[in-house]
Amino acid sequence: MTQLEQQGQCAKAAASVLAVTGTAKKNEALELIASALERRRGEILAANAADLEAARAANMRPSLLDRLSLSDERIGGIVEGVRQVAALPDPIGETVRMTTRPNGLTIGKRRVPMGVIGMIYEARPNVTVDAAVLCLKSGNACLLRGGKEAFQSNMAFVGVMRDALAEAGLPADCINLVQDVSRESATEMMHLTGYLDLLIPRGGAGLIRSVVENARVPVIETGIGVCHVYVDKDADLAMGAQIINNAKTTRPSVCNAAECLLVHAAVAEEFLPQAWALLRESNVELRGCAETQRILGDTVVPATEQDWDTEFGDYILAVKVVQNVQEAIAFINAHGSGHSECIVTSNYFTANEFLNAVDAAAVYVNASTRFTDGFEFGLGAEIGISTQKMHARGPMGLEELTSFKYVVYGTGQIR
Amino acid sequence: MTQLEQQGQCAKAAASVLAVTGTAKKNEALELIASALERRRGEILAANAADLEAARAANMRPSLLDRLSLSDERIGGIVEGVRQVAALPDPIGETVRMTTRPNGLTIGKRRVPMGVIGMIYEARPNVTVDAAVLCLKSGNACLLRGGKEAFQSNMAFVGVMRDALAEAGLPADCINLVQDVSRESATEMMHLTGYLDLLIPRGGAGLIRSVVENARVPVIETGIGVCHVYVDKDADLAMGAQIINNAKTTRPSVCNAAECLLVHAAVAEEFLPQAWALLRESNVELRGCAETQRILGDTVVPATEQDWDTEFGDYILAVKVVQNVQEAIAFINAHGSGHSECIVTSNYFTANEFLNAVDAAAVYVNASTRFTDGFEFGLGAEIGISTQKMHARGPMGLEELTSFKYVVYGTGQIR
Repeated sequence: MTQLEQQGQCAKAAASVLAVTGTAKKNEALELIASALERRRGEILAANAADLEAARAANMRPSLLDRLSLSDERIGGIVEGVRQVAALPDPIGETVRMTTRPNGLTIGKRRVPMGVIGMIYEARPNVTVDAAVLCLKSGNACLLRGGKEAFQSNMAFVGVMRDALAEAGLPADCINLVQDVSRESATEMMHLTGYLDLLIPRGGAGLIRSVVENARVPVIETGIGVCHVYVDKDADLAMGAQIINNAKTTRPSVCNAAECLLVHAAVAEEFLPQAWALLRESNVELRGCAETQRILGDTVVPATEQDWDTEFGDYILAVKVVQNVQEAIAFINAHGSGHSECIVTSNYFTANEFLNAVDAAAVYVNASTRFTDGFEFGLGAEIGISTQKMHARGPMGLEELTSFKYVVYGTGQIR
Repeated sequence: MTQLEQQGQCAKAAASVLAVTGTAKKNEALELIASALERRRGEILAANAADLEAARAANMRPSLLDRLSLSDERIGGIVEGVRQVAALPDPIGETVRMTTRPNGLTIGKRRVPMGVIGMIYEARPNVTVDAAVLCLKSGNACLLRGGKEAFQSNMAFVGVMRDALAEAGLPADCINLVQDVSRESATEMMHLTGYLDLLIPRGGAGLIRSVVENARVPVIETGIGVCHVYVDKDADLAMGAQIINNAKTTRPSVCNAAECLLVHAAVAEEFLPQAWALLRESNVELRGCAETQRILGDTVVPATEQDWDTEFGDYILAVKVVQNVQEAIAFINAHGSGHSECIVTSNYFTANEFLNAVDAAAVYVNASTRFTDGFEFGLGAEIGISTQKMHARGPMGLEELTSFKYVVYGTGQIR
């Protein structure tokens, strides 16, 4: 039995305890985790300093160094997050559609934990705490595999949380950190059938592709966002310019940022210079179709076919002029990643057609795609954004970490 | 592009039409399918006769021949099933949790089709019609791969249904039959990313294992049932005997049949002869633990370790005496397949403990496991029984063939 299988076995045993643990006890453990993280922040910062030193020695980019680094303030934010999760309603135990059948059987669908949830993620050590406490609140044990750059920080976080679990009288094995952070351990997690009830990979296109090809455990794909803003002929053009500028430039590295602007031919001539006036302030590079090049001239790099399918994650925007909303919808369904898609229009019928026909986790009328987020959607928390249709779609909160079982109350019925 | 990829592409195009097709039009198509199946039953029976002839030539077992064969009456039942699906409520379009956020965004979660659903199944040709019409009602195109024994029958069914779709003004490609019924085509379906939004394998353990190992598309595992009945020390023993007899003998080949009887040690001596008196009428073979052998003597074959994990699908029952409900729960969670599990007890607290701690799609108190079925659970239909926790668990009806998308109504919000 490998180390990972052993951890899987321990996590599974812990999950069976957690599945029958009440809300009060789980919240007590969360509060103990929060106060332990506050009390022991010195250890955590020391571990993080070791990660940072190694990262600097390996010439890590400043933006990644910033994502890796912790501070008193950042730990304070993490602790605050733990307390917010404790304050959320517990999804477990809710029973829906309870009915009595003609034969007298009373049947209900009761919300239960998934069991053991695996996560593969990179860089930011705060994800370790976020993921662990969301799993704990929803009654799931977890097996976490963070990035190797954050390993010491993750070890410190998990050590503190496991101690707090024991203090609460719960199994420390509710929260587990994978010790081997090689590529092989990620693949092994994908094959950990019998132990993992769900695997959530959070990372770039390469990780997601590897998971799709290799996973034998149930998976929720997250985080790939090739999002579009379509500015219709009936759009408020000033609103359209604000929306594409917001969707592109406020945080280009995240998955709900826009990668492609589509503009109706009838308004392209008027709209594109308006949008460009805002986008140029952030030095956005435009990669446009022939018509976009004609209108905006030398500011536009000719777009390649590949640009239409690329998540730039940067200050780069593909731009295409289309003939009508139908062309926009077809283009989005062919090139989008099913994440977040927006139409800017004042026309009721056009808005409805777009809402109905675009196949994506979130479809917007007259608002920035940047709102696709568990907190903005009112879920109170977020463990990732699913771009698949099965089980969870869009921002995932506590409910998306649960399953159901049918409970059936009989009085001796046979069939 | 392979033939299967071409079919996938056609199905995907049809799915985008179906996704925006209203309930009335879908029901019209279902009624046209029902009447065409009635009108053209001669063609279908002729095709079925060809399948039967080939099957007899290949020495197919009588029980399988029976599953393969169609008749006027069976086609009548299939037609009736189509009309029942037409009469079910359409799950598509329901919008839940619609709220207006503090920033004025109105956000709702709208039920939408999955897109293209693949199914791999065997033997019975009626599954072809059942699956196609459930997919159609829930707005999904389908790609069906039946067993090679039923290929001519399936071709006839699909031909009739495609003609009816065209008559209704819907794309014939909403319903597609895989032409190649080799093992390779099943594997190719498992790899059909970009075309299949969901794959439902219905078949034996070998098929399910192959899907777990090979699938790159989202999958719902179905149909493996290692189900237990636990007779507690506080059980009504006569009720317990009726329930295990019903769960084992009414249809041993189906997945909700019991494979293993667990008995509390305090009542084993009294209960086992009572149960045996019923089970022996069906010539059930008992494979028991040492204590069971001691009590029932020569009627019991000694159980091997493997017997505790086996779906016999036959008149064979594993029997084990346990010390208490905790041991029964631990045994079930270790050896069960997460399908249907039953406790027979008159003790309120014991019943609750079992309901809470057993990890299965359906957990019963004092009723036969044989009730795990979409019709018995009131879903109105069934496309299979999921034994996984993700997306769907237990009997799957129309809702389980759907996904959600968030619809977001804004007035120019940026973040």
